[in-house]
Amino acid sequence: MTLSEQLVPLKWADDRLYLLDQTRLPVETIYLELTKIKEVWDAIRHLQVRGAPAIGMAAAYGVYLGIRGSEAASYEAIQAEATEHADYLATSRPTAVNLFWALDRIKERVAREAGKAPEEVKAAVLEEALEIQREDEAVCKQIGENLLTLLEDGIGVLTHCNPGALATAAYGTATAPFYLAKQRGWNLKVYADETRPVLQGARLTALELQKAGVDVTLICDNMAGMVMSQGKVQAVIVGTDRVAANGDVANKIGTYSVAVLAKAHNIPFYVAAPLSSIDLNTPTGAEIPIEERPAEEITHGLGKQVAPTGIKVYNPAFDITPASYITAIVTENGIYKPEEIGNSKK
Amino acid sequence: MTLSEQLVPLKWADDRLYLLDQTRLPVETIYLELTKIKEVWDAIRHLQVRGAPAIGMAAAYGVYLGIRGSEAASYEAIQAEATEHADYLATSRPTAVNLFWALDRIKERVAREAGKAPEEVKAAVLEEALEIQREDEAVCKQIGENLLTLLEDGIGVLTHCNPGALATAAYGTATAPFYLAKQRGWNLKVYADETRPVLQGARLTALELQKAGVDVTLICDNMAGMVMSQGKVQAVIVGTDRVAANGDVANKIGTYSVAVLAKAHNIPFYVAAPLSSIDLNTPTGAEIPIEERPAEEITHGLGKQVAPTGIKVYNPAFDITPASYITAIVTENGIYKPEEIGNSKK
Repeated sequence: MTLSEQLVPLKWADDRLYLLDQTRLPVETIYLELTKIKEVWDAIRHLQVRGAPAIGMAAAYGVYLGIRGSEAASYEAIQAEATEHADYLATSRPTAVNLFWALDRIKERVAREAGKAPEEVKAAVLEEALEIQREDEAVCKQIGENLLTLLEDGIGVLTHCNPGALATAAYGTATAPFYLAKQRGWNLKVYADETRPVLQGARLTALELQKAGVDVTLICDNMAGMVMSQGKVQAVIVGTDRVAANGDVANKIGTYSVAVLAKAHNIPFYVAAPLSSIDLNTPTGAEIPIEERPAEEITHGLGKQVAPTGIKVYNPAFDITPASYITAIVTENGIYKPEEIGNSKK
Repeated sequence: MTLSEQLVPLKWADDRLYLLDQTRLPVETIYLELTKIKEVWDAIRHLQVRGAPAIGMAAAYGVYLGIRGSEAASYEAIQAEATEHADYLATSRPTAVNLFWALDRIKERVAREAGKAPEEVKAAVLEEALEIQREDEAVCKQIGENLLTLLEDGIGVLTHCNPGALATAAYGTATAPFYLAKQRGWNLKVYADETRPVLQGARLTALELQKAGVDVTLICDNMAGMVMSQGKVQAVIVGTDRVAANGDVANKIGTYSVAVLAKAHNIPFYVAAPLSSIDLNTPTGAEIPIEERPAEEITHGLGKQVAPTGIKVYNPAFDITPASYITAIVTENGIYKPEEIGNSKK
């Protein structure tokens, strides 16, 4: 399998940014061809690109699209333009931390080019955007290699939400071993939770694995216990939004239920966690705020109203899985017991 | 609270059958007025009435609507007509066991009226239909009274699917204590799982409890673990399709996951089971066949396509909760430990 057989969120080629319009998934897979910074801003704002790493990468390319036609005659002039474009792109999704991280990194790169000719600065910005993407791909691939050492050919693996290629440069985090196993000729049987209310598992994970020829079966979240009791699952792998210093893990709502079910069935529960998601400044999961989302995601989320008008709804976007339910946290640096996650950054 | 404040699936009044059109729920609550047997047949066929007890009751009234205008001049003639009408109604949903049970009961009642005048037979059929409904209501209410002894004012209770008034004569089975608690002025906090893929919890349970003024909060199935971990739930009550002789319970898919989660949080797990659902001829849950339903319920169930075309899907309609996860099975005869359920019919 080559990487081109993966459904990736964006790729730079032919002097333009090909960006998968994720709002049309899973029915249509259409790549937009972006050549102007305004198009990148619109794509981020309208959720055509989603997933923290992918948003950051798109923005980095966006700065390059903004400056490449510039007629600035000095370093100072091109730096001012790059800064202006970065600040503009930062307004596209004001709460996306990875967006700011990528834009800051582009600005720092420009600063390192101080005194150079505008054309050299332009080339450096494109090089930095490509490097951000290459690094993210390398991190994901290494997480996948590390996870693969915990699996074996022929087993069933359950995953939740979309810790997938569609959110990253390639491979995804929790999905990375599925792609690598496919390359090795292994036949993993993946069970993808649909992941209510927003259905990232049904719309995204099921799609990207299907496109790559991985043996994937879609189930409703409430079927996870049954497939475990039937012996169909030998490992669970999920992603994470944040790992606390004690090994507690925040991830998409439903992850905690899966972890409890896995423990009850003696099934190992692995968390795929890039070092960037490990936050040693947060002591435990109790300090991680849980966003509550609008009721409409549950009551009207699937195309029509499915619950009574005015019904009270509880819709937390994330939950916390205590370290005691986690077999191992797998980073690009290696495999850690949750209580030893503090060592991962040493 | 009077019964009229419950959203019930049907009621006989004004010489006609008022039947709630459940295909329009949860957005509209409209009662059809049925005066002809053909209308009853259509309502059953088109799922305007659903839930085993409710279907049986509708069919019983249907036989009466079929014969009440008859000009039959002898007992034999009216009996032949009643049999013909019952056989016709049995074709409306050929797999609904409760439908056949109710129609057989009507035929037996007609047989007991042998030799009587046609007008007397007609009155007996209506009386039998009313009696079937009264008995179902009494069973549900007694299950609710028994369950209520296991609960207390102010607690949180989680339920799954629609073991509700909308499927029965009134009260429902697992929902019965919620109505009775409301009558007593208790303030139970009910959490209703939406119950993917068909969303009976969102569309039906949330609606009927909301209409009755019960404090009900809708959650996605994958949030059950989180609300338990937050201390919001002190008991789980579910219904059942069948209880095996060893106390294993078949119920809507997702029930098993809830039971495992309840056990992990030391929360009692109760099953509301009319004696009619207890099948002592089935030794264990392993002998209960699990129906698999079409993939489209998951991929296209609610108005639009939410999963990739051609994706492999596993969609079991039910699961088995082993007796070891069940705190008690509550029938109209009393409260039983699952391993003692054989005593319930003595």
